[in-house]
Amino acid sequence: MIERLTVQTHGQGLVELTAEVNAVVRQAGVREGLCTLLIQHTSASLTIQENADPSARRDLADWLARLVREDDPHFTHTAEGPDDMPSHIKAALTATTLSIPIVDGRLGLGTWQGIYVWEHRRRGSRRRVLVHVS
Amino acid sequence: MIERLTVQTHGQGLVELTAEVNAVVRQAGVREGLCTLLIQHTSASLTIQENADPSARRDLADWLARLVREDDPHFTHTAEGPDDMPSHIKAALTATTLSIPIVDGRLGLGTWQGIYVWEHRRRGSRRRVLVHVS
Amino acid sequence: MIERLTVQTHGQGLVELTAEVNAVVRQAGVREGLCTLLIQHTSASLTIQENADPSARRDLADWLARLVREDDPHFTHTAEGPDDMPSHIKAALTATTLSIPIVDGRLGLGTWQGIYVWEHRRRGSRRRVLVHVS
Repeated sequence: MIERLTVQTHGQGLVELTAEVNAVVRQAGVREGLCTLLIQHTSASLTIQENADPSARRDLADWLARLVREDDPHFTHTAEGPDDMPSHIKAALTATTLSIPIVDGRLGLGTWQGIYVWEHRRRGSRRRVLVHVS
Repeated sequence: MIERLTVQTHGQGLVELTAEVNAVVRQAGVREGLCTLLIQHTSASLTIQENADPSARRDLADWLARLVREDDPHFTHTAEGPDDMPSHIKAALTATTLSIPIVDGRLGLGTWQGIYVWEHRRRGSRRRVLVHVS
Repeated sequence: MIERLTVQTHGQGLVELTAEVNAVVRQAGVREGLCTLLIQHTSASLTIQENADPSARRDLADWLARLVREDDPHFTHTAEGPDDMPSHIKAALTATTLSIPIVDGRLGLGTWQGIYVWEHRRRGSRRRVLVHVS
């Protein structure tokens, strides 16, 4: 079973979608199985991160913004703006696909784990995520 | 089939679990299929790395420790100690889930590949890994 | 169904294999399912990246080469040449396995996404990729 989710982002940062993915798993009625996610973009990515303290996610995004600088003078792929090439690099350093075992009809995540879409562009947009359950 | 593995870590560094995962695959009796791993933590991660020379894994962990510094003055998420926020970043830069095809009843890894739990905290602990075989 | 692909690389950089993987999916005759890739090496990796402008992939590889320097004086694992240890690090920072939902008999990639083998060694070689379709 495949479901298409759409996640609205609001500029750079992480947007949680754990509840939406668990709803897809519940709807599929699978007790034990596998849930696979693919984000259909190269300037946003997926990550499993701490779901408790938002400061951890802010520090994470800020750290990556300091590592992959928009003003890097070596970039040649600049036609789509200064945040475009850094977005591709950030996507390559994080995850485009995730596979999560399903246990007792729910995602088998740890207590403090959430699934996030990580927007790397300055401007928010609607990001498409494919969810496969088997 | 889902199995829960527990891996004891001993401070920062990589702990191999290839043999334990191959044992789960053997027990499942699957000749051709897929084995998916999820580590249920956000301050430790998974990686497939060279299993021959331990110096490669030491250099890898040391390099990442130089990239993600504990004394970064920008961090605000510091309540759980100076190694906590770097751990989340290191986990985001490596893998939380891995999916490995099963060939002839064994993990289809290359000759020099091993599966590792990568502990990012200074203190060792018992890390939980879900293993799904289908 | 498992297929073994071989990808010839030509020194550092990205080589696309989207068409080859789609051919495996087509041959498997699966309309809706999951396609999992594993590269059987620790000095090359997999990535899903922009398939339009080659300058994005060049900037990506060049950026990573500036981050993980061959002349890092801290490396001890140097017997296989100055590009060996950086290769392992680059592989750990990118992907060794990818799982892609299959939709309507094709890989469910976004419009601008392609699958790439990322060679991290200076010298090209024949890289083995396992493709599992279910």
